Amino acid sequence: MSECTHDCSTCGNACASKAPADFAAPLNANSKIRRVIAVASGKGGVGKSLVATMLAVTAMRKGLKVGILDADITGPSIPKAFGIVGGTFQTEFGIEPARSTGGIRIISLNMLIEHPDEPVVWRGSMIAGCVKQFWSEVHWGELDLLVIDMPPGTGDVPLTVFQSIPVDGVVVVSSPQELVEMIVGKSVRMCEMMNKPVLGLVENMSYFQCPKCGEIHELYGESKALALAGHFKIPRHARLPVDPKIAQLVDGGGAENVELPADATACLEAIIV
Amino acid sequence: MSECTHDCSTCGNACASKAPADFAAPLNANSKIRRVIAVASGKGGVGKSLVATMLAVTAMRKGLKVGILDADITGPSIPKAFGIVGGTFQTEFGIEPARSTGGIRIISLNMLIEHPDEPVVWRGSMIAGCVKQFWSEVHWGELDLLVIDMPPGTGDVPLTVFQSIPVDGVVVVSSPQELVEMIVGKSVRMCEMMNKPVLGLVENMSYFQCPKCGEIHELYGESKALALAGHFKIPRHARLPVDPKIAQLVDGGGAENVELPADATACLEAIIV
Repeated sequence: MSECTHDCSTCGNACASKAPADFAAPLNANSKIRRVIAVASGKGGVGKSLVATMLAVTAMRKGLKVGILDADITGPSIPKAFGIVGGTFQTEFGIEPARSTGGIRIISLNMLIEHPDEPVVWRGSMIAGCVKQFWSEVHWGELDLLVIDMPPGTGDVPLTVFQSIPVDGVVVVSSPQELVEMIVGKSVRMCEMMNKPVLGLVENMSYFQCPKCGEIHELYGESKALALAGHFKIPRHARLPVDPKIAQLVDGGGAENVELPADATACLEAIIV
Repeated sequence: MSECTHDCSTCGNACASKAPADFAAPLNANSKIRRVIAVASGKGGVGKSLVATMLAVTAMRKGLKVGILDADITGPSIPKAFGIVGGTFQTEFGIEPARSTGGIRIISLNMLIEHPDEPVVWRGSMIAGCVKQFWSEVHWGELDLLVIDMPPGTGDVPLTVFQSIPVDGVVVVSSPQELVEMIVGKSVRMCEMMNKPVLGLVENMSYFQCPKCGEIHELYGESKALALAGHFKIPRHARLPVDPKIAQLVDGGGAENVELPADATACLEAIIV
Protein backbone atom coordinates (compact mmCIF):
# COMPACT_ATOMS: atom_id res chain seq x y z
CA MET A 1 0.00 0.00 0.00
CA SER A 2 1.41 3.35 -1.02
CA GLU A 3 0.76 6.48 0.94
CA CYS A 4 -1.30 9.37 -0.37
CA THR A 5 0.93 11.92 -2.09
CA HIS A 6 -1.57 14.79 -1.96
CA ASP A 7 -1.68 17.65 0.47
CA CYS A 8 -4.71 17.82 2.70
CA SER A 9 -7.28 20.08 1.07
CA THR A 10 -8.28 21.52 4.44
CA CYS A 11 -5.00 22.13 6.32
CA GLY A 12 -2.50 22.08 3.41
CA ASN A 13 -0.16 19.67 5.19
CA ALA A 14 0.95 16.42 3.59
CA CYS A 15 -1.95 14.01 3.86
CA ALA A 16 -1.49 11.36 6.51
CA SER A 17 -4.11 9.08 5.03
CA LYS A 18 -3.34 6.04 2.93
CA ALA A 19 -6.86 5.95 1.59
CA PRO A 20 -6.87 8.01 -1.64
CA ALA A 21 -3.84 6.30 -3.16
CA ASP A 22 -5.28 2.92 -2.17
CA PHE A 23 -8.51 3.51 -4.04
CA ALA A 24 -6.90 3.71 -7.47
CA ALA A 25 -6.80 0.31 -9.11
CA PRO A 26 -4.25 -0.60 -11.82
CA LEU A 27 -5.60 -1.60 -15.21
CA ASN A 28 -5.19 -5.25 -16.18
CA ALA A 29 -1.59 -5.65 -17.35
CA ASN A 30 -2.57 -7.17 -20.70
CA SER A 31 -5.06 -4.44 -21.60
CA LYS A 32 -4.96 -0.97 -23.08
CA ILE A 33 -7.96 1.33 -22.96
CA ARG A 34 -7.97 4.62 -24.82
CA ARG A 35 -11.05 6.23 -23.28
CA VAL A 36 -13.41 5.55 -20.37
CA ILE A 37 -16.93 7.01 -20.24
CA ALA A 38 -19.15 6.48 -17.19
CA VAL A 39 -22.94 6.56 -17.45
CA ALA A 40 -24.49 7.82 -14.21
CA SER A 41 -27.84 8.88 -12.82
CA GLY A 42 -28.79 10.49 -9.54
CA LYS A 43 -31.69 8.03 -9.20
CA GLY A 44 -32.45 4.47 -10.23
CA GLY A 45 -35.08 3.48 -12.75
CA VAL A 46 -34.40 6.16 -15.34
CA GLY A 47 -32.82 3.90 -17.97
CA LYS A 48 -29.14 4.36 -17.25
CA SER A 49 -28.32 0.86 -18.52
CA LEU A 50 -30.13 1.49 -21.81
CA VAL A 51 -28.01 4.58 -22.36
CA ALA A 52 -24.78 2.70 -21.51
CA THR A 53 -25.85 -0.04 -23.90
CA MET A 54 -26.68 2.33 -26.75
CA LEU A 55 -23.48 4.31 -26.23
CA ALA A 56 -21.51 1.09 -26.70
CA VAL A 57 -23.61 -0.03 -29.68
CA THR A 58 -23.21 3.37 -31.35
CA ALA A 59 -19.42 3.18 -30.89
CA MET A 60 -19.34 -0.38 -32.22
CA ARG A 61 -21.25 0.73 -35.34
CA LYS A 62 -18.64 3.46 -35.87
CA GLY A 63 -15.97 0.75 -35.96
CA LEU A 64 -14.54 1.32 -32.49
CA LYS A 65 -13.38 -1.52 -30.24
CA VAL A 66 -15.75 -1.27 -27.28
CA GLY A 67 -16.24 -2.81 -23.86
CA ILE A 68 -18.91 -2.43 -21.18
CA LEU A 69 -18.06 -2.73 -17.50
CA ASP A 70 -21.36 -3.33 -15.70
CA ALA A 71 -20.77 -1.64 -12.35
CA ASP A 72 -24.47 -1.63 -11.47
CA ILE A 73 -23.72 -4.60 -9.24
CA THR A 74 -27.06 -4.81 -7.45
CA GLY A 75 -29.11 -4.47 -10.64
CA PRO A 76 -26.98 -5.80 -13.49
CA SER A 77 -28.89 -5.70 -16.77
CA ILE A 78 -26.20 -5.44 -19.44
CA PRO A 79 -25.70 -9.18 -20.20
CA LYS A 80 -29.44 -9.67 -20.73
CA ALA A 81 -29.64 -6.73 -23.15
CA PHE A 82 -27.05 -8.45 -25.36
CA GLY A 83 -28.46 -11.95 -24.93
CA ILE A 84 -25.38 -13.17 -23.08
CA VAL A 85 -25.98 -16.27 -21.00
CA GLY A 86 -23.51 -18.27 -18.99
CA GLY A 87 -20.28 -17.39 -17.31
CA THR A 88 -16.76 -16.51 -18.19
CA PHE A 89 -13.37 -18.14 -17.87
CA GLN A 90 -9.86 -17.28 -16.80
CA THR A 91 -6.70 -17.38 -18.93
CA GLU A 92 -3.11 -16.40 -18.17
CA PHE A 93 -4.10 -12.84 -19.25
CA GLY A 94 -6.99 -12.49 -16.82
CA ILE A 95 -10.76 -13.03 -16.73
CA GLU A 96 -12.09 -13.14 -20.28
CA PRO A 97 -15.04 -10.79 -20.89
CA ALA A 98 -18.03 -12.14 -22.82
CA ARG A 99 -18.43 -11.02 -26.43
CA SER A 100 -21.67 -9.78 -27.95
CA THR A 101 -22.60 -10.77 -31.52
CA GLY A 102 -21.08 -7.51 -32.74
CA GLY A 103 -17.92 -7.99 -30.66
CA ILE A 104 -18.60 -5.76 -27.65
CA ARG A 105 -16.64 -7.06 -24.64
CA ILE A 106 -18.81 -7.29 -21.56
CA ILE A 107 -18.20 -8.05 -17.91
CA SER A 108 -20.92 -8.18 -15.27
CA LEU A 109 -21.35 -9.74 -11.88
CA ASN A 110 -24.21 -11.75 -13.39
CA MET A 111 -21.58 -13.72 -15.30
CA LEU A 112 -19.67 -14.62 -12.16
CA ILE A 113 -22.37 -15.68 -9.70
CA GLU A 114 -24.16 -18.98 -9.56
CA HIS A 115 -27.77 -17.75 -9.33
CA PRO A 116 -28.07 -14.58 -11.42
CA ASP A 117 -31.81 -14.32 -10.67
CA GLU A 118 -31.29 -13.81 -6.94
CA PRO A 119 -30.84 -10.25 -5.72
CA VAL A 120 -27.33 -9.27 -4.69
CA VAL A 121 -27.30 -7.71 -1.23
CA TRP A 122 -23.80 -6.46 -0.64
CA ARG A 123 -22.17 -3.79 1.40
CA GLY A 124 -20.82 -0.81 -0.50
CA SER A 125 -17.22 -1.82 0.10
CA MET A 126 -17.76 -5.23 -1.48
CA ILE A 127 -19.43 -3.68 -4.51
CA ALA A 128 -16.54 -1.26 -4.95
CA GLY A 129 -14.06 -4.13 -4.60
CA CYS A 130 -15.87 -6.08 -7.28
CA VAL A 131 -15.78 -3.13 -9.70
CA LYS A 132 -12.07 -2.68 -9.02
CA GLN A 133 -11.52 -6.33 -9.92
CA PHE A 134 -13.39 -5.82 -13.17
CA TRP A 135 -10.88 -3.11 -14.03
CA SER A 136 -7.73 -4.90 -12.83
CA GLU A 137 -8.37 -8.55 -13.50
CA VAL A 138 -10.44 -8.59 -16.68
CA HIS A 139 -8.48 -9.09 -19.89
CA TRP A 140 -10.04 -6.23 -21.88
CA GLY A 141 -7.31 -6.30 -24.51
CA GLU A 142 -7.10 -3.17 -26.67
CA LEU A 143 -10.17 -0.97 -26.47
CA ASP A 144 -10.98 2.39 -28.02
CA LEU A 145 -13.76 2.90 -25.50
CA LEU A 146 -14.85 1.37 -22.21
CA VAL A 147 -18.38 2.30 -21.12
CA ILE A 148 -19.09 1.95 -17.39
CA ASP A 149 -22.70 1.41 -16.33
CA MET A 150 -22.40 3.08 -12.92
CA PRO A 151 -24.24 2.16 -9.73
CA PRO A 152 -27.26 4.50 -9.45
CA GLY A 153 -27.27 7.47 -7.10
CA THR A 154 -24.53 9.69 -5.78
CA GLY A 155 -23.53 7.81 -2.65
CA ASP A 156 -20.48 5.91 -1.49
CA VAL A 157 -20.48 3.29 -4.20
CA PRO A 158 -20.37 5.49 -7.32
CA LEU A 159 -17.84 7.74 -5.55
CA THR A 160 -15.53 4.81 -4.92
CA VAL A 161 -15.85 3.70 -8.54
CA PHE A 162 -14.82 7.19 -9.66
CA GLN A 163 -11.82 6.99 -7.36
CA SER A 164 -10.82 3.53 -8.57
CA ILE A 165 -10.99 3.94 -12.34
CA PRO A 166 -9.58 6.80 -14.48
CA VAL A 167 -12.90 7.94 -15.98
CA ASP A 168 -12.46 10.51 -18.78
CA GLY A 169 -15.99 11.84 -18.76
CA VAL A 170 -19.54 11.20 -17.62
CA VAL A 171 -22.91 10.96 -19.35
CA VAL A 172 -25.77 11.84 -16.99
CA VAL A 173 -29.14 10.17 -17.54
CA SER A 174 -32.40 11.73 -16.40
CA SER A 175 -36.13 11.40 -16.95
CA PRO A 176 -38.67 14.22 -17.41
CA GLN A 177 -40.40 13.45 -14.11
CA GLU A 178 -40.54 15.87 -11.22
CA LEU A 179 -37.58 16.74 -8.98
CA VAL A 180 -35.30 16.03 -11.95
CA GLU A 181 -33.42 19.30 -11.50
CA MET A 182 -32.42 18.29 -7.98
CA ILE A 183 -31.47 14.78 -9.11
CA VAL A 184 -29.41 15.93 -12.10
CA GLY A 185 -27.84 18.59 -9.86
CA LYS A 186 -26.61 15.88 -7.49
CA SER A 187 -24.98 14.00 -10.38
CA VAL A 188 -23.34 17.15 -11.71
CA ARG A 189 -21.98 18.06 -8.28
CA MET A 190 -20.57 14.55 -7.89
CA CYS A 191 -18.73 14.97 -11.21
CA GLU A 192 -17.39 18.36 -10.12
CA MET A 193 -16.15 16.86 -6.84
CA MET A 194 -14.39 14.11 -8.79
CA ASN A 195 -13.09 16.58 -11.37
CA LYS A 196 -14.76 14.74 -14.25
CA PRO A 197 -16.32 16.59 -17.20
CA VAL A 198 -20.01 15.94 -17.91
CA LEU A 199 -20.04 15.09 -21.63
CA GLY A 200 -23.78 15.00 -22.16
CA LEU A 201 -27.25 14.73 -20.65
CA VAL A 202 -29.63 12.06 -21.93
CA GLU A 203 -33.31 12.41 -21.05
CA ASN A 204 -34.89 8.98 -21.24
CA MET A 205 -38.67 8.37 -21.53
CA SER A 206 -38.78 11.86 -23.00
CA TYR A 207 -41.74 11.35 -25.36
CA PHE A 208 -43.84 8.77 -27.17
CA GLN A 209 -44.60 8.92 -30.86
CA CYS A 210 -47.85 7.17 -31.75
CA PRO A 211 -46.86 4.62 -34.39
CA LYS A 212 -50.34 4.86 -35.91
CA CYS A 213 -50.84 8.60 -36.35
CA GLY A 214 -47.35 10.00 -35.76
CA GLU A 215 -48.44 12.36 -32.97
CA ILE A 216 -45.80 13.04 -30.30
CA HIS A 217 -46.85 12.89 -26.63
CA GLU A 218 -44.78 14.03 -23.68
CA LEU A 219 -46.04 11.29 -21.36
CA TYR A 220 -44.33 12.40 -18.17
CA GLY A 221 -44.51 16.13 -18.62
CA GLU A 222 -42.63 18.64 -20.70
CA SER A 223 -39.03 17.84 -21.64
CA LYS A 224 -36.50 19.51 -19.39
CA ALA A 225 -33.42 18.33 -21.30
CA LEU A 226 -32.62 21.61 -23.03
CA ALA A 227 -33.21 23.75 -19.94
CA LEU A 228 -31.19 21.45 -17.67
CA ALA A 229 -28.28 21.22 -20.12
CA GLY A 230 -28.24 25.02 -20.23
CA HIS A 231 -28.54 25.43 -16.48
CA PHE A 232 -25.75 22.98 -15.66
CA LYS A 233 -23.60 23.97 -18.68
CA ILE A 234 -23.65 20.45 -20.17
CA PRO A 235 -22.42 20.67 -23.79
CA ARG A 236 -24.85 18.14 -25.36
CA HIS A 237 -28.25 16.68 -24.68
CA ALA A 238 -30.36 13.96 -26.26
CA ARG A 239 -33.94 12.80 -25.84
CA LEU A 240 -34.79 9.10 -25.99
CA PRO A 241 -38.42 8.09 -26.59
CA VAL A 242 -40.54 5.57 -24.75
CA ASP A 243 -40.69 2.89 -27.44
CA PRO A 244 -42.17 -0.58 -26.88
CA LYS A 245 -40.07 -1.89 -29.80
CA ILE A 246 -36.83 -0.80 -28.09
CA ALA A 247 -37.97 -2.30 -24.76
CA GLN A 248 -38.86 -5.56 -26.48
CA LEU A 249 -35.52 -5.78 -28.29
CA VAL A 250 -33.50 -5.03 -25.15
CA ASP A 251 -35.57 -7.42 -22.99
CA GLY A 252 -34.98 -10.12 -25.60
CA GLY A 253 -31.22 -9.64 -25.89
CA GLY A 254 -31.35 -7.75 -29.19
CA ALA A 255 -29.78 -4.46 -28.09
CA GLU A 256 -27.51 -4.48 -31.14
CA ASN A 257 -30.57 -4.27 -33.41
CA VAL A 258 -32.01 -1.16 -31.70
CA GLU A 259 -32.30 1.93 -33.88
CA LEU A 260 -32.59 5.18 -31.97
CA PRO A 261 -34.05 8.34 -33.55
CA ALA A 262 -31.46 10.14 -35.71
CA ASP A 263 -31.06 13.13 -33.37
CA ALA A 264 -30.32 10.86 -30.39
CA THR A 265 -27.79 8.83 -32.40
CA ALA A 266 -26.03 12.02 -33.51
CA CYS A 267 -25.68 13.12 -29.88
CA LEU A 268 -24.27 9.75 -28.77
CA GLU A 269 -21.83 9.83 -31.72
CA ALA A 270 -20.62 13.26 -30.65
CA ILE A 271 -20.09 12.01 -27.09
CA ILE A 272 -17.95 9.00 -28.02
CA VAL A 273 -15.60 10.84 -30.37
CA MET B 1 -46.48 -4.07 28.13
CA SER B 2 -48.70 -7.12 27.78
CA GLU B 3 -47.30 -10.48 26.86
CA CYS B 4 -48.08 -12.22 23.60
CA THR B 5 -51.11 -14.48 24.00
CA HIS B 6 -50.45 -16.59 20.89
CA ASP B 7 -48.93 -20.04 20.74
CA CYS B 8 -45.66 -20.32 18.91
CA SER B 9 -46.35 -21.24 15.28
CA THR B 10 -43.31 -23.52 15.21
CA CYS B 11 -43.36 -25.43 18.54
CA GLY B 12 -47.00 -24.92 19.61
CA ASN B 13 -46.04 -23.80 23.13
CA ALA B 14 -47.23 -20.53 24.59
CA CYS B 15 -45.14 -17.78 23.07
CA ALA B 16 -42.53 -16.34 25.41
CA SER B 17 -42.06 -13.18 23.39
CA LYS B 18 -43.53 -9.86 24.31
CA ALA B 19 -42.92 -8.50 20.85
CA PRO B 20 -46.12 -9.19 18.87
CA ALA B 21 -48.44 -7.69 21.46
CA ASP B 22 -46.13 -4.69 21.78
CA PHE B 23 -46.32 -3.87 18.09
CA ALA B 24 -50.07 -3.26 18.08
CA ALA B 25 -50.90 0.41 18.54
CA PRO B 26 -54.24 1.59 19.99
CA LEU B 27 -56.41 3.77 17.77
CA ASN B 28 -56.77 7.40 18.80
CA ALA B 29 -59.36 7.46 21.61
CA ASN B 30 -61.56 10.05 19.89
CA SER B 31 -61.71 8.21 16.56
CA LYS B 32 -63.69 5.36 15.05
CA ILE B 33 -62.63 3.72 11.80
CA ARG B 34 -64.85 1.18 10.08
CA ARG B 35 -62.40 -0.21 7.54
CA VAL B 36 -58.66 0.01 6.83
CA ILE B 37 -57.23 -0.77 3.38
CA ALA B 38 -53.46 -0.74 2.81
CA VAL B 39 -51.98 -0.04 -0.63
CA ALA B 40 -48.69 -1.89 -1.06
CA SER B 41 -46.14 -2.67 -3.77
CA GLY B 42 -43.13 -4.95 -3.79
CA LYS B 43 -41.09 -2.22 -5.44
CA GLY B 44 -41.00 1.58 -5.49
CA GLY B 45 -41.81 3.72 -8.49
CA VAL B 46 -44.87 1.83 -9.69
CA GLY B 47 -47.47 4.42 -8.68
CA LYS B 48 -48.60 3.11 -5.30
CA SER B 49 -49.43 6.62 -4.06
CA LEU B 50 -51.59 7.31 -7.12
CA VAL B 51 -53.62 4.17 -6.40
CA ALA B 52 -54.00 5.11 -2.70
CA THR B 53 -55.09 8.58 -3.78
CA MET B 54 -57.64 7.33 -6.32
CA LEU B 55 -59.00 4.73 -3.90
CA ALA B 56 -59.71 7.54 -1.41
CA VAL B 57 -61.14 9.85 -4.09
CA THR B 58 -63.42 7.06 -5.39
CA ALA B 59 -64.69 6.41 -1.85
CA MET B 60 -65.24 10.12 -1.26
CA ARG B 61 -67.30 10.34 -4.46
CA LYS B 62 -69.45 7.45 -3.21
CA GLY B 63 -70.24 9.53 -0.11
CA LEU B 64 -67.95 7.72 2.33
CA LYS B 65 -66.02 9.50 5.06
CA VAL B 66 -62.40 8.86 4.08
CA GLY B 67 -58.91 9.38 5.44
CA ILE B 68 -55.43 8.73 4.06
CA LEU B 69 -52.54 7.80 6.33
CA ASP B 70 -49.36 8.44 4.33
CA ALA B 71 -47.03 5.76 5.66
CA ASP B 72 -44.58 6.18 2.77
CA ILE B 73 -42.42 8.17 5.17
CA THR B 74 -39.32 8.47 3.01
CA GLY B 75 -41.26 9.45 -0.12
CA PRO B 76 -44.45 11.14 1.01
CA SER B 77 -46.46 12.36 -1.98
CA ILE B 78 -50.06 12.41 -0.74
CA PRO B 79 -50.27 16.05 0.48
CA LYS B 80 -48.94 17.36 -2.84
CA ALA B 81 -51.50 15.32 -4.83
CA PHE B 82 -54.28 17.11 -2.93
CA GLY B 83 -52.64 20.53 -2.97
CA ILE B 84 -52.18 20.57 0.78
CA VAL B 85 -49.54 22.98 2.00
CA GLY B 86 -48.53 23.82 5.52
CA GLY B 87 -48.67 21.89 8.73
CA THR B 88 -51.21 20.69 11.20
CA PHE B 89 -52.20 21.50 14.78
CA GLN B 90 -53.00 19.72 17.99
CA THR B 91 -56.26 19.85 19.94
CA GLU B 92 -57.43 18.06 23.07
CA PHE B 93 -58.57 15.22 20.76
CA GLY B 94 -55.18 14.71 19.11
CA ILE B 95 -53.30 15.89 16.01
CA GLU B 96 -55.79 17.27 13.48
CA PRO B 97 -55.40 15.80 9.99
CA ALA B 98 -55.49 18.16 7.02
CA ARG B 99 -58.67 18.23 4.92
CA SER B 100 -58.75 18.13 1.15
CA THR B 101 -61.25 20.26 -0.79
CA GLY B 102 -63.59 17.29 -0.89
CA GLY B 103 -63.13 16.54 2.82
CA ILE B 104 -60.60 13.69 2.75
CA ARG B 105 -58.64 13.68 6.02
CA ILE B 106 -54.92 13.39 5.41
CA ILE B 107 -51.87 12.93 7.59
CA SER B 108 -48.31 12.75 6.29
CA LEU B 109 -44.87 13.32 7.70
CA ASN B 110 -44.54 16.20 5.21
CA MET B 111 -47.03 18.12 7.32
CA LEU B 112 -44.97 17.69 10.50
CA ILE B 113 -41.42 18.47 9.40
CA GLU B 114 -39.88 21.83 8.85
CA HIS B 115 -38.29 21.27 5.45
CA PRO B 116 -40.55 18.97 3.44
CA ASP B 117 -38.26 19.18 0.38
CA GLU B 118 -35.34 17.53 2.14
CA PRO B 119 -35.15 13.74 1.97
CA VAL B 120 -36.00 11.89 5.16
CA VAL B 121 -33.28 9.41 6.09
CA TRP B 122 -34.56 7.45 9.03
CA ARG B 123 -34.00 4.03 10.46
CA GLY B 124 -36.81 1.53 10.02
CA SER B 125 -37.74 1.63 13.69
CA MET B 126 -38.24 5.40 13.60
CA ILE B 127 -40.41 5.14 10.50
CA ALA B 128 -42.56 2.46 12.13
CA GLY B 129 -42.84 4.59 15.28
CA CYS B 130 -44.00 7.55 13.22
CA VAL B 131 -46.71 5.48 11.50
CA LYS B 132 -47.87 4.17 14.86
CA GLN B 133 -48.23 7.75 16.05
CA PHE B 134 -50.32 8.57 13.01
CA TRP B 135 -52.70 5.81 14.08
CA SER B 136 -52.77 6.56 17.80
CA GLU B 137 -52.39 10.31 18.05
CA VAL B 138 -54.23 11.65 15.00
CA HIS B 139 -57.81 12.70 15.60
CA TRP B 140 -59.36 10.88 12.63
CA GLY B 141 -62.89 11.21 14.00
CA GLU B 142 -65.45 8.88 12.42
CA LEU B 143 -64.27 7.31 9.16
CA ASP B 144 -65.85 4.75 6.86
CA LEU B 145 -62.49 4.05 5.28
CA LEU B 146 -58.85 4.74 6.07
CA VAL B 147 -56.46 4.19 3.15
CA ILE B 148 -52.83 3.57 4.10
CA ASP B 149 -50.16 4.42 1.52
CA MET B 150 -47.63 1.80 2.63
CA PRO B 151 -43.84 2.10 2.55
CA PRO B 152 -42.65 0.37 -0.66
CA GLY B 153 -41.15 -3.11 -0.62
CA THR B 154 -41.65 -6.09 1.65
CA GLY B 155 -39.03 -5.41 4.30
CA ASP B 156 -39.05 -4.53 7.95
CA VAL B 157 -40.94 -1.28 7.67
CA PRO B 158 -44.11 -2.46 5.89
CA LEU B 159 -44.12 -5.56 8.14
CA THR B 160 -44.10 -3.41 11.27
CA VAL B 161 -46.91 -1.26 9.89
CA PHE B 162 -48.98 -4.40 9.31
CA GLN B 163 -48.30 -5.44 12.90
CA SER B 164 -49.18 -2.01 14.32
CA ILE B 165 -52.47 -1.29 12.56
CA PRO B 166 -55.49 -3.62 12.11
CA VAL B 167 -55.51 -3.62 8.30
CA ASP B 168 -58.62 -5.30 6.84
CA GLY B 169 -57.24 -5.89 3.36
CA VAL B 170 -54.51 -4.97 0.91
CA VAL B 171 -54.45 -3.63 -2.63
CA VAL B 172 -51.25 -4.62 -4.46
CA VAL B 173 -49.90 -2.26 -7.12
CA SER B 174 -47.72 -3.47 -9.99
CA SER B 175 -46.43 -2.30 -13.36
CA PRO B 176 -46.21 -4.35 -16.57
CA GLN B 177 -42.40 -4.27 -16.55
CA GLU B 178 -40.24 -7.35 -16.24
CA LEU B 179 -39.80 -9.38 -13.05
CA VAL B 180 -43.29 -8.26 -12.03
CA GLU B 181 -44.35 -11.81 -11.17
CA MET B 182 -41.56 -12.08 -8.60
CA ILE B 183 -42.32 -8.62 -7.20
CA VAL B 184 -46.08 -9.22 -6.90
CA GLY B 185 -45.33 -12.65 -5.44
CA LYS B 186 -43.33 -11.02 -2.65
CA SER B 187 -46.24 -8.70 -1.80
CA VAL B 188 -48.73 -11.58 -1.83
CA ARG B 189 -46.51 -13.68 0.44
CA MET B 190 -46.16 -10.77 2.86
CA CYS B 191 -49.98 -10.52 3.03
CA GLU B 192 -50.24 -14.26 3.63
CA MET B 193 -47.68 -14.05 6.44
CA MET B 194 -49.67 -11.23 8.00
CA ASN B 195 -52.97 -13.03 7.42
CA LYS B 196 -54.38 -10.14 5.38
CA PRO B 197 -56.58 -10.74 2.31
CA VAL B 198 -55.42 -9.24 -0.99
CA LEU B 199 -58.49 -7.36 -2.22
CA GLY B 200 -57.24 -6.43 -5.68
CA LEU B 201 -54.30 -5.98 -8.03
CA VAL B 202 -53.85 -2.66 -9.83
CA GLU B 203 -51.49 -2.57 -12.80
CA ASN B 204 -50.30 1.00 -13.25
CA MET B 205 -48.73 2.35 -16.48
CA SER B 206 -50.60 -0.48 -18.18
CA TYR B 207 -51.24 1.23 -21.52
CA PHE B 208 -51.39 4.55 -23.32
CA GLN B 209 -54.30 5.63 -25.46
CA CYS B 210 -53.30 8.13 -28.14
CA PRO B 211 -55.58 11.12 -27.57
CA LYS B 212 -55.36 11.98 -31.28
CA CYS B 213 -56.20 8.67 -32.98
CA GLY B 214 -57.53 6.56 -30.09
CA GLU B 215 -55.05 3.71 -30.65
CA ILE B 216 -54.02 1.82 -27.50
CA HIS B 217 -50.32 1.09 -26.95
CA GLU B 218 -48.88 -1.23 -24.30
CA LEU B 219 -45.79 0.92 -23.69
CA TYR B 220 -43.98 -1.37 -21.26
CA GLY B 221 -44.97 -4.71 -22.68
CA GLU B 222 -48.09 -6.82 -22.61
CA SER B 223 -50.39 -6.45 -19.61
CA LYS B 224 -49.87 -9.15 -17.01
CA ALA B 225 -52.72 -8.04 -14.71
CA LEU B 226 -55.19 -10.76 -15.67
CA ALA B 227 -52.62 -13.56 -15.60
CA LEU B 228 -51.14 -12.44 -12.26
CA ALA B 229 -54.54 -12.04 -10.62
CA GLY B 230 -55.37 -15.57 -11.74
CA HIS B 231 -52.03 -17.00 -10.66
CA PHE B 232 -52.12 -15.45 -7.19
CA LYS B 233 -55.91 -15.91 -6.77
CA ILE B 234 -56.55 -12.16 -6.38
CA PRO B 235 -60.31 -11.53 -6.79
CA ARG B 236 -60.13 -8.26 -8.78
CA HIS B 237 -57.74 -6.45 -11.06
CA ALA B 238 -57.65 -3.05 -12.71
CA ARG B 239 -55.47 -1.41 -15.34
CA LEU B 240 -54.52 2.25 -15.06
CA PRO B 241 -53.22 4.04 -18.16
CA VAL B 242 -50.20 6.27 -18.57
CA ASP B 243 -51.98 9.59 -18.97
CA PRO B 244 -50.20 12.95 -19.03
CA LYS B 245 -53.45 14.63 -17.94
CA ILE B 246 -53.62 12.53 -14.77
CA ALA B 247 -49.93 13.17 -14.03
CA GLN B 248 -50.44 16.91 -14.52
CA LEU B 249 -53.49 17.02 -12.25
CA VAL B 250 -51.79 15.02 -9.48
CA ASP B 251 -48.55 17.03 -9.74
CA GLY B 252 -50.60 20.22 -9.45
CA GLY B 253 -52.63 19.16 -6.43
CA GLY B 254 -55.79 18.37 -8.39
CA ALA B 255 -56.14 14.66 -7.55
CA GLU B 256 -59.83 15.16 -6.75
CA ASN B 257 -60.45 16.19 -10.37
CA VAL B 258 -58.90 13.04 -11.88
CA GLU B 259 -61.25 10.82 -13.89
CA LEU B 260 -60.04 7.26 -14.34
CA PRO B 261 -61.32 5.04 -17.16
CA ALA B 262 -64.70 3.49 -16.27
CA ASP B 263 -63.38 -0.07 -15.87
CA ALA B 264 -60.71 1.05 -13.40
CA THR B 265 -63.24 3.08 -11.39
CA ALA B 266 -65.57 0.08 -11.23
CA CYS B 267 -62.77 -2.08 -9.83
CA LEU B 268 -61.83 0.51 -7.17
CA GLU B 269 -65.52 0.83 -6.22
CA ALA B 270 -65.77 -2.92 -5.75
CA ILE B 271 -62.68 -2.88 -3.52
CA ILE B 272 -63.92 -0.16 -1.13
CA VAL B 273 -67.38 -1.63 -0.55
